[in-house]
Amino acid sequence: MKKQPVRNMVIAQSGGPSMVINQSLVGAVLAARASGGIGAIYGARHGIDGILKEDFIDLRKVSQKTLETVAKTPSSALGSVRHKPTPEECRRIFEVLRRRDIGLFLYIGGNDSAETVQVVDREARRAKFDLSCFHIPKTIDNDLRGGNDHTPGYGSAARFVAMAFQGDDLDNRALGGVKIDVVMGRDAGFLTAASALARTAPDSGPHLIYLPERPFDLDAFAEDVKGVMERVGRCVVAVSEGIRDRDGTPVAVKLAAGPVEKDSHGNAQLSGTGALGDLLAREIKARTGIRRVRADTFGYLQRTFPGIASERDSAEARAVGETAVRTALSGKAKSGSIAIVRKPGPRYAVSYACVPLASVARRTRSMPAAFIASNGHDVTPAFLAYARPLVGLLPEVGLLD
Amino acid sequence: MKKQPVRNMVIAQSGGPSMVINQSLVGAVLAARASGGIGAIYGARHGIDGILKEDFIDLRKVSQKTLETVAKTPSSALGSVRHKPTPEECRRIFEVLRRRDIGLFLYIGGNDSAETVQVVDREARRAKFDLSCFHIPKTIDNDLRGGNDHTPGYGSAARFVAMAFQGDDLDNRALGGVKIDVVMGRDAGFLTAASALARTAPDSGPHLIYLPERPFDLDAFAEDVKGVMERVGRCVVAVSEGIRDRDGTPVAVKLAAGPVEKDSHGNAQLSGTGALGDLLAREIKARTGIRRVRADTFGYLQRTFPGIASERDSAEARAVGETAVRTALSGKAKSGSIAIVRKPGPRYAVSYACVPLASVARRTRSMPAAFIASNGHDVTPAFLAYARPLVGLLPEVGLLD
Repeated sequence: MKKQPVRNMVIAQSGGPSMVINQSLVGAVLAARASGGIGAIYGARHGIDGILKEDFIDLRKVSQKTLETVAKTPSSALGSVRHKPTPEECRRIFEVLRRRDIGLFLYIGGNDSAETVQVVDREARRAKFDLSCFHIPKTIDNDLRGGNDHTPGYGSAARFVAMAFQGDDLDNRALGGVKIDVVMGRDAGFLTAASALARTAPDSGPHLIYLPERPFDLDAFAEDVKGVMERVGRCVVAVSEGIRDRDGTPVAVKLAAGPVEKDSHGNAQLSGTGALGDLLAREIKARTGIRRVRADTFGYLQRTFPGIASERDSAEARAVGETAVRTALSGKAKSGSIAIVRKPGPRYAVSYACVPLASVARRTRSMPAAFIASNGHDVTPAFLAYARPLVGLLPEVGLLD
Repeated sequence: MKKQPVRNMVIAQSGGPSMVINQSLVGAVLAARASGGIGAIYGARHGIDGILKEDFIDLRKVSQKTLETVAKTPSSALGSVRHKPTPEECRRIFEVLRRRDIGLFLYIGGNDSAETVQVVDREARRAKFDLSCFHIPKTIDNDLRGGNDHTPGYGSAARFVAMAFQGDDLDNRALGGVKIDVVMGRDAGFLTAASALARTAPDSGPHLIYLPERPFDLDAFAEDVKGVMERVGRCVVAVSEGIRDRDGTPVAVKLAAGPVEKDSHGNAQLSGTGALGDLLAREIKARTGIRRVRADTFGYLQRTFPGIASERDSAEARAVGETAVRTALSGKAKSGSIAIVRKPGPRYAVSYACVPLASVARRTRSMPAAFIASNGHDVTPAFLAYARPLVGLLPEVGLLD
């Protein structure tokens, strides 16, 4: 294997932020700085838009101390973007990269960001521009394909959701009635499912968990709630923002008053509104006659609440960034995405693999059937065993009865 | 002063839960257990309803270890209620108390709970039933009168709000546009104001803070947002759920589709819905043409999120519970509410005082004018100096620019 010439690197962040996406950034930057195989390290602000505008931060100049503080800070320190580049934009990107002798492009994000890397990689080969292109995974939704056991960002967001349901179940114990909490997750129920980790007692909520993987029906929902009220005397419900009806239409889109906003990857905007929760609360009030029905939508707090990130998620996010740089420098692959692979066995352990961009880009994965209870509104012990090590120990809950 | 005979005690919790209300419960119970001056310790479940139904927990039997875990657990471990007793209900309460030889009634809650204690105290005197009645303050809204510098529960909820805005400002830095966050607080802006503690850099949000103490006007709001967008290029807004128009009508009530639920103390239900945030987001989109406008409503997470309580708030909540029992046993007062009094001077220190129930019951206090910026949509340095010691150190934020 021939020695790689020292060239420069650009790194950027894309899509929705997470609590640990800066761990991946800092992992990649520190690995590049330590390697001796990388010259300048450019941080592009707001994803590929930063490359197009040549809006760069010199990441060699930032102190180790600042980088370590940034690593623990939620959200995307370089700024983010939701923008799929056109072939013409790719040509302009290559002009910038060529002028700055950049031979390595690292992009941290979800499946849409992987698609961006795939487009850049394809166009670079078409343009005969020598560029290594790597995707560093991040998504709180945990919906990446390509052999990912899970993705950086999920464990911490799941930890927020589990903690929030611990608190909300205690709140519901105190004041009763029905509480509906809407959790992020457009196509996959992993994050909503993490609410089940909050349970500590036989009567703990959430008592009902609705995922995008199973068709949602308002009549059945009302019956489920009535059943829990009879059995437990109160009811906490976890609902994914992405729940769909039998036709596959998101309930949030179907019931929206006007047209729903879409991004340049074609995804409907479901977050940043409390409409779905409010609608479900109204329906439950009307259909069951229960007086106290409340709804909360966790919103963006799930992805950027500071100070509560999962330690394991943080460490893995760091390792994924480091692995991307090391894989690129090893010359073993010209492009790819870094996947977390869980090793079989009773003790939790992972390894990191480089998988083809095509296996991750664009498409998403759903919760496997083995993780969803047969009643369609709960998770299985297999899911709890899967998710618990990613989330870490939760605050202890004390009850008087 | 003659020695008090040993009689039994009942304690209960009322109103919205907080992260530290169980510290007050455990403080009172452990002080009673240690005193030698109290016989049986009854915990009534769901406030005065638990007394009426004789639904009691024997709080002498609960282990110290369990009590300490309960103390750190958010929400009301005895359950809560929103119920103002009638004179007839008071007579039934006294029958229960007389039969169990209960001479001390402790009630943990906000101003409505203080009113309940006041009613019970008045009716007991009318019925010539010998009963000491003490109110132990709790409210995340921080709106108690009666010489309270602040109230247990506020510091921890304010900590949640400040942390949430830290995260949300970082999110907004990454993706831009306008983000509106609706914070709890029916009559007082203290909790919404705590969002200002999140600021770490000159361009940090929240950039606009709207409180119930100043009339809210949609036209002015849209102009304020446009101004911030021009100056900062993005905008994070903190809005109290209790914002009112010039006539004093809550915006949430005015714009609600149907009638708004009220509790038995006559308060309109403002929380547990995302309607206000969604409405404000729609108005900003329509009036400014800004594309990316999102709204989140923090909801019940503010009062029961586990694991992040302010240490000072926890310690003071404990002390207030202890003080109530000691004051009752001292015989210095037959009834009252325990207030936290801040000592003057550069170092934070407090003392605890017993104030008349009438000074706390029913009425609420607002943010003093000295805490509100003259532009009407920000707080003053005096507020920050007031709130910072209650909230404690926040997670460190690292920025790359």
